[in-house]
Amino acid sequence: MIDMTRYLLERPHTLVPLTFFSEKFSSAKSSISEDLTIIRNTFARQGTGILETVPGAAGGVRYIPTVTEDDAKSVLNEMSQRISESDRLLPGGYVYLSDLLGEPNVLRQVGKLIAAQYAKKPVDVVMTIATKGIPIAQSVAYYLNKPFVIVRRDSKITEGSTVSVNYVSGSSNRIEKMELSKRTLKPGAQVLVVDDFMKGGGTINGMVSMVKEFDADLAGIAVFGESNFEGSRNIPEYTSLIQVENVDTENKHIHAIPGNYFAQTKFIALTPNQSGVQE
Amino acid sequence: MIDMTRYLLERPHTLVPLTFFSEKFSSAKSSISEDLTIIRNTFARQGTGILETVPGAAGGVRYIPTVTEDDAKSVLNEMSQRISESDRLLPGGYVYLSDLLGEPNVLRQVGKLIAAQYAKKPVDVVMTIATKGIPIAQSVAYYLNKPFVIVRRDSKITEGSTVSVNYVSGSSNRIEKMELSKRTLKPGAQVLVVDDFMKGGGTINGMVSMVKEFDADLAGIAVFGESNFEGSRNIPEYTSLIQVENVDTENKHIHAIPGNYFAQTKFIALTPNQSGVQE
Repeated sequence: MIDMTRYLLERPHTLVPLTFFSEKFSSAKSSISEDLTIIRNTFARQGTGILETVPGAAGGVRYIPTVTEDDAKSVLNEMSQRISESDRLLPGGYVYLSDLLGEPNVLRQVGKLIAAQYAKKPVDVVMTIATKGIPIAQSVAYYLNKPFVIVRRDSKITEGSTVSVNYVSGSSNRIEKMELSKRTLKPGAQVLVVDDFMKGGGTINGMVSMVKEFDADLAGIAVFGESNFEGSRNIPEYTSLIQVENVDTENKHIHAIPGNYFAQTKFIALTPNQSGVQE
Repeated sequence: MIDMTRYLLERPHTLVPLTFFSEKFSSAKSSISEDLTIIRNTFARQGTGILETVPGAAGGVRYIPTVTEDDAKSVLNEMSQRISESDRLLPGGYVYLSDLLGEPNVLRQVGKLIAAQYAKKPVDVVMTIATKGIPIAQSVAYYLNKPFVIVRRDSKITEGSTVSVNYVSGSSNRIEKMELSKRTLKPGAQVLVVDDFMKGGGTINGMVSMVKEFDADLAGIAVFGESNFEGSRNIPEYTSLIQVENVDTENKHIHAIPGNYFAQTKFIALTPNQSGVQE
């Protein structure tokens, strides 16, 4: 049961046939099935996620990470507090986040929160832009068990042929270029766009254009932080985990609150039960 | 027991007091202790890692990820095969790896293999250079439960003050510059340097200089892939997971084999037992 738990946790959104477990542990399918019921109920009670049972010959079990509203609240409140530390303020009103986005524990929580929104929605690939979006994309990709692709502002020979799009950098109003390796995205793929921080939304808009350029579909947009932008960003619906409300460089004051995550998220109620399929 | 397993797996190299579990699950310490023995033995049998017991009032349990030699062999053989696919060859003899290093499952295995070498050695922080080293650094950092820091070739305002070093790019023989945010590294920190691919070793050498520049200590060097470099790299001892032996652009042939990982790794034997402390 311990090793089954580990195996499932390491493979979110992956259908594991019951026969795989019964062979791995030389157990009858019925006792595997009983163990899975216990695991499912524990996951439900602790808010770990859904253990979905797919019946039939091609069936099996699948672990789908979710979060409870309470857990999301405590995570986002704690992060807001940490971002409100005054020594994060950099000249020009920029906010230093590199330490947070280099902590495995923070990234794990960020990844799970964003992935939980897509527990029941199709995502084929996570897209981000170098450099600081990468850790977030990787964490989200981990919990969705999907690959991530990295758009770059500078092309490298090791990417092979690339597709490039121009975009207007919102904060500086300059036209810039971003590129993505041609072989990374398939037409029709459902693409979840993520980034570390959004000000004017220009970079996000560039990635949305990139998705279209590949004839792929936008599954959603999620950013770790957003600034309190005045005016219209003119971008599709997005989710933010944190909003930096107030940056006062003169008095070295910065204030962050949870973003629109709660308004954007349908929390899935997990109900433990003794029998049958949870769905 | 299921939730204890999850909790420990999500927090490698973290000491969890027994009282934490007994309060979380409202159980007597003795029954928590029995459950932990079962978890420890399962982890040992399945090659998941060590569940270390630290006795005393400030004690608890700590999950330390390890790999078995057999698991490492099958992982590295499979990766070598995938890299030997001819359509990875790019003009100039470069090898396309971005797809592999964007797959959660590959990154999980890479991270665990490298982290397992440091199961018993101190690492305070993982260092890499943007862009393609980041996913590897993040995975290794996850299994060591330590932060990672990103050295950049281009400075960004959002990094605050930086320290820069010059280095000779081995492949092009040019002098280049790399920078790291000043607040990321503490003097005396044990730094594990990782990167995606090493040719001449110039970038690695640059990061080693960066470690010295911060008065920190080099804990080790690990790369995902290395080329079959002719001549001396003049760098400290390093570990490579994969070696690209042969790149023949004319016949579109590429051949990869496991790197020096086995020569560089002391595999830790895990022995399940019913009683007491495993160490």
